[in-house]
Amino acid sequence: MKRKGNLTLPSESGFLDETKELIDRWGADALRDSDGTKLSDDLKKLDAKIYTTYFVSRGHNDFARENMDECQHLYLMSDFNLATSDTLEVKFMDGYFSEQVRPDYDHDPKRFWEVIDRTSGELVDRSNWDLDSERDTVIIKNAKEFHEYTVSFLTYAIWDPTQMYNHITNDWGDKEHDIPFDVRKEKSSKFVEDYIENWLKENEDTDVVRFTTFFYHFTLVFNDKGKEKFVDWFGYSASVSPEALDAFEESKGYRLRPEDIIDEGYYNSPFRVPSKEFLDFMDFQQEFVSNKAKSLVDKVHDSGKEAIMFLGDNWIGTEPYGKYFKNIGLDGVVGSVGDGATLRMISEIPHVKYTEGRFLPYFFPDTFREGNDPVIEAKDNWLSARRAIMRKPVDRIGYGGYLSLAYKFPKFVDYVENIADEFRDIYDTINGVKPYSGLKVAILNSWGKIRSWQTFMVAHALWYKQIYSYLGILESLSGMSVDVEFISFDDVKTNGINSDIDVIINAGVEGTAFSGGINWLDEKLITTIRKWIYNGGGFIGIGEPSAIRHEGRFFQLADALGIDKELSFSLSTDKYFDEEEEEHFISKDLKGKIDFGESMNNIYSLSEKTEIIEYSNGEIHLSSNDYGKGRGVYIAGLPYNKDNARLLMRSMFYAAHKEEELYRYFASNPAVEVNAYPDIDKYAIINNTDEEQKSIIYDGDGDSYNVELSPGEISWVNIKGDNNG
Amino acid sequence: MKRKGNLTLPSESGFLDETKELIDRWGADALRDSDGTKLSDDLKKLDAKIYTTYFVSRGHNDFARENMDECQHLYLMSDFNLATSDTLEVKFMDGYFSEQVRPDYDHDPKRFWEVIDRTSGELVDRSNWDLDSERDTVIIKNAKEFHEYTVSFLTYAIWDPTQMYNHITNDWGDKEHDIPFDVRKEKSSKFVEDYIENWLKENEDTDVVRFTTFFYHFTLVFNDKGKEKFVDWFGYSASVSPEALDAFEESKGYRLRPEDIIDEGYYNSPFRVPSKEFLDFMDFQQEFVSNKAKSLVDKVHDSGKEAIMFLGDNWIGTEPYGKYFKNIGLDGVVGSVGDGATLRMISEIPHVKYTEGRFLPYFFPDTFREGNDPVIEAKDNWLSARRAIMRKPVDRIGYGGYLSLAYKFPKFVDYVENIADEFRDIYDTINGVKPYSGLKVAILNSWGKIRSWQTFMVAHALWYKQIYSYLGILESLSGMSVDVEFISFDDVKTNGINSDIDVIINAGVEGTAFSGGINWLDEKLITTIRKWIYNGGGFIGIGEPSAIRHEGRFFQLADALGIDKELSFSLSTDKYFDEEEEEHFISKDLKGKIDFGESMNNIYSLSEKTEIIEYSNGEIHLSSNDYGKGRGVYIAGLPYNKDNARLLMRSMFYAAHKEEELYRYFASNPAVEVNAYPDIDKYAIINNTDEEQKSIIYDGDGDSYNVELSPGEISWVNIKGDNNG
Repeated sequence: MKRKGNLTLPSESGFLDETKELIDRWGADALRDSDGTKLSDDLKKLDAKIYTTYFVSRGHNDFARENMDECQHLYLMSDFNLATSDTLEVKFMDGYFSEQVRPDYDHDPKRFWEVIDRTSGELVDRSNWDLDSERDTVIIKNAKEFHEYTVSFLTYAIWDPTQMYNHITNDWGDKEHDIPFDVRKEKSSKFVEDYIENWLKENEDTDVVRFTTFFYHFTLVFNDKGKEKFVDWFGYSASVSPEALDAFEESKGYRLRPEDIIDEGYYNSPFRVPSKEFLDFMDFQQEFVSNKAKSLVDKVHDSGKEAIMFLGDNWIGTEPYGKYFKNIGLDGVVGSVGDGATLRMISEIPHVKYTEGRFLPYFFPDTFREGNDPVIEAKDNWLSARRAIMRKPVDRIGYGGYLSLAYKFPKFVDYVENIADEFRDIYDTINGVKPYSGLKVAILNSWGKIRSWQTFMVAHALWYKQIYSYLGILESLSGMSVDVEFISFDDVKTNGINSDIDVIINAGVEGTAFSGGINWLDEKLITTIRKWIYNGGGFIGIGEPSAIRHEGRFFQLADALGIDKELSFSLSTDKYFDEEEEEHFISKDLKGKIDFGESMNNIYSLSEKTEIIEYSNGEIHLSSNDYGKGRGVYIAGLPYNKDNARLLMRSMFYAAHKEEELYRYFASNPAVEVNAYPDIDKYAIINNTDEEQKSIIYDGDGDSYNVELSPGEISWVNIKGDNNG
Repeated sequence: MKRKGNLTLPSESGFLDETKELIDRWGADALRDSDGTKLSDDLKKLDAKIYTTYFVSRGHNDFARENMDECQHLYLMSDFNLATSDTLEVKFMDGYFSEQVRPDYDHDPKRFWEVIDRTSGELVDRSNWDLDSERDTVIIKNAKEFHEYTVSFLTYAIWDPTQMYNHITNDWGDKEHDIPFDVRKEKSSKFVEDYIENWLKENEDTDVVRFTTFFYHFTLVFNDKGKEKFVDWFGYSASVSPEALDAFEESKGYRLRPEDIIDEGYYNSPFRVPSKEFLDFMDFQQEFVSNKAKSLVDKVHDSGKEAIMFLGDNWIGTEPYGKYFKNIGLDGVVGSVGDGATLRMISEIPHVKYTEGRFLPYFFPDTFREGNDPVIEAKDNWLSARRAIMRKPVDRIGYGGYLSLAYKFPKFVDYVENIADEFRDIYDTINGVKPYSGLKVAILNSWGKIRSWQTFMVAHALWYKQIYSYLGILESLSGMSVDVEFISFDDVKTNGINSDIDVIINAGVEGTAFSGGINWLDEKLITTIRKWIYNGGGFIGIGEPSAIRHEGRFFQLADALGIDKELSFSLSTDKYFDEEEEEHFISKDLKGKIDFGESMNNIYSLSEKTEIIEYSNGEIHLSSNDYGKGRGVYIAGLPYNKDNARLLMRSMFYAAHKEEELYRYFASNPAVEVNAYPDIDKYAIINNTDEEQKSIIYDGDGDSYNVELSPGEISWVNIKGDNNG
């Protein structure tokens, strides 16, 4: 009989028999509720752990309504407003949703708000503006004609944005709006402590408290038509409050300006090179959140239950790769798995006993509707995630939503049964076993470790035209037999580069936190990296690496990469070196045109020694350059697909001068990957596609043989008794 | 019998009969020599003016060899050199051609050279470097490890680059190298004055002295393989000298640094926003050149001859649209006509009695070879130039090269006969007559008037991937029934915007002199432009107009344009306004996909009021926005073709709120244009293609009728007795 366990099943009241059946078929050992579903008592008595969703700072409107002065806050910026005379009226709420936010007139606007001349960049003196709270209008006096002005204003957040989204999307009608309250404030702080104590007593059946989540929601703002206006999965704007700003001043010794949060209207997007002020604020909030969350988690533990958190929604300040996370003392983290990178984001989380991936599709009517086949999304999701699981498995998998919907699709139920079995098989084989890695790569950007597996992301796992050509890097790496680390410019400046790193990747758009912008003018950073490459390191630049206009260069590592980008200033210089190599190690397994995604224009080589691997449309998209004992590889963009994963892998082995070592536990066919586990004398050959594949396989000694794999197959081979044995 | 005149024929010794025949058939009234050909005495006695090419500062090697201390100079920058220890040797001549340039060790290198740390941007103290002139090497001491260094060094220019190019291209073997000498220096100054006096006496047959050109060649540098390494048709680097630098200091009151000329290795490319220092240097040299040239031109006039100059080669300092040009007192300017824009560049030159366009193809073996049809290039060239001639004709046309080659292609001889007749017909009809213009447009950039019809150009009329999407603006305008003016940011700041301007175009790549870069942070500039648009002006931005990252905007005129470019900082902001209009005035005559050339990525609209005319690939490429009483139109790029010329025309009339006025002297078919001359009661309908065309024609009252035109046809219509009369 097959093993059960490591799987969480969403259930719902009135669905007992089917739940029993699926517990059996999928091997579930835990049941959960979801947003909109409840577990009835009969379900709670089944042989499974019970997960119960717990909202800390919303979903308690009886309290919140009575204490509206403890509402959460949100800093917002008005539209740009043009002064056409010396008086300008700014209706700062224009474009915002009055059901979500309400201007805070209780805390002195002259202290907490700012009016900025966005043409000159100057702060407008407080004496030069007045407020008409009746009309939600700021009146600016002595305005400069044809300058643009913005108002930064503090609002109360009066509707939790996740509930709002579900409410609007699912047409919940007159269901009450969840009002988020702020645990930094006295009554709220006491309320959440008291409430959970009672709740824990009242919910004896619950084995695992699933915090969804703690205190502050990522920034999610709606427009005046109730549609999403701004979404930043990492945003701290909704964690501010007068109290927080005062406490910050006390803690850090200086006061934040509203502009430190507003940030020209970019609200410290993770794409912005973070200011010291914002990094201080993050640190300050993380410390606070971790302490406060710990006290709730402690209570859960005291009641004999486990505490896990959902990685999302009100997760601001809990960053699992941040320095305060371990203090919280959580038992586990559960997160949504959109692909391989998001799986690794979850599975690598330290300081917890277990991680759980919530797989797609979510059991909602958008996917589970007549005429749609949910197996397609499930298969895509599983094959993407499986690559990452082979490197570092989550400990559990699960689903969410209405089980009654999923149950109507028998082929889906069959397919998940297969996933569950395959997952447990993999997990039981490799959990805790270090997989073979051919080299170690570090992703270098402004964020480093705290944003491990979270670079280039706007809203969790959503596609954006401007990011997919970079997200492919993480997705490629998520299932690749290399070790991955995330390091920041500050790490390099402070600690240098660890000796175990073979390859550094710097990728992204000019000026962003990922490419690095102004960081590259730091002499310590640039010389450390140059020296490291020169002495044998492998550097890979993707997009606009090390880009900032300075002293005749755009890419500050142009010398190491052997290429630069033409900004139109050096058009007078002939580009006569640009000739494509006939064959190259990096592009060897690839057939047809390489997909560079959004790609990059106007890249040219600096000298004839640059190896040009792809040249088309009058520009270079793929090249390599010897630099001392090291190498610099340039790639114009890397959306995820199997060929690009292979391209990146070859680029890394080439950059690191480890060309020969590529052919250990290696498949010639990019659709196939090999993961080896020397400690248990096994390796797995996996077919990442839903089609049959053939490949030459190279074992750990570099000996090769041919295989054929059925769609999606994993073939396990014993190292000591393999086909060559 | 047909009229003769207004045409210059290249001839050559031993080609008398054929020359007579072509004088007759093409109606030539002047004969010229070319580089490599001479006119024999029998030719000089024909009934035609004789043009003789005159080189001022080269082609006199007997003098130059004896006075190598008066050679011209060139400032050059070495490659970037990486310091891997605290001592760095820089072989600064690496990559340069020792037959062209030779380091100047005579003038104290510690005074005239610079060593720059390009990593920190700091100047290296003179005490920290030494020179080994035997090895053309600078030795830098106390170098910072893994910083890059460059050496800026002064060289003698020992071979005129145009002669070098012709020499190498035509395999002239051991023909002596023309050594350029510098008229700023004493002996050279005297030499050129004396020489021309003798020459004028000895060349009685010459009617017109064709200066090719005066003193300083545009920057043209060759690499160590004798191939072009750097070419800037506007470059001043070859006009420097120790004497010039000293005189500059005396004149302007401060000393230039080598870096003011070297400019990070960009050498003040016209794409660089010019520094005050460089503008001062240009002014200083122009004044000098105009004075010196005047004295030669005066001598020509004293001898009873005419003086014209060739617009190219050693033309630096003579800028025909500059403020010193008129001082020179030239009778005419002759320039090479590559297209409509270059024709206007010549035909609009002020302060001369006549202008002459040298048409293509040049009679050289590259075109006039067996199997090639030179008529194709001639026809393209003529149809492009004719559009511009209809707006403002040159006074003369001509050709260059070996007539004996052209004579071997009878169809070409026929075609030029047609061109000549058509040219004279147009010229006799419209010369001196102001054509009807529907509006006036100003091209706004850092250069303004001095670079009239010369924006976005690298090397005269050559195609570059990075410029063709902008050159199309000028090419479109060159034949369009609008008035065109070139204005600078300084003009706007100093004088505001003239009331006769209907439309302003700002176009180019971010940070360039054409887009404007740092200029857009000037409050006076930005508010003047905003106010002007707001009060009814039409603004057209192409590519990256008004672009510089500042206070939450990339395009500083984003408000007027209604769009901005996503730099990845505002990905969190939803772009929900992007919906294409169904039909729009601007795109009305266009069929099929618009060609935006290199185009622009990531343009999005700021609000729902932006009219999106073209949206594809998740971004806007064509839009319009009402701004007060004015409008801002955005175009992602505008390579020249007939549809894009129409697109620009419609954009201008729309931006200027003159939609109705478009339909005066207008053809519905973009392949056809109408030019009207109310003062002579005529208008011309021209077919710009080599195919038959049909069109609706709108006359001056807006009444319309249909026409059919044969390939290339010009149809003249009398305004008072036209088809509607």
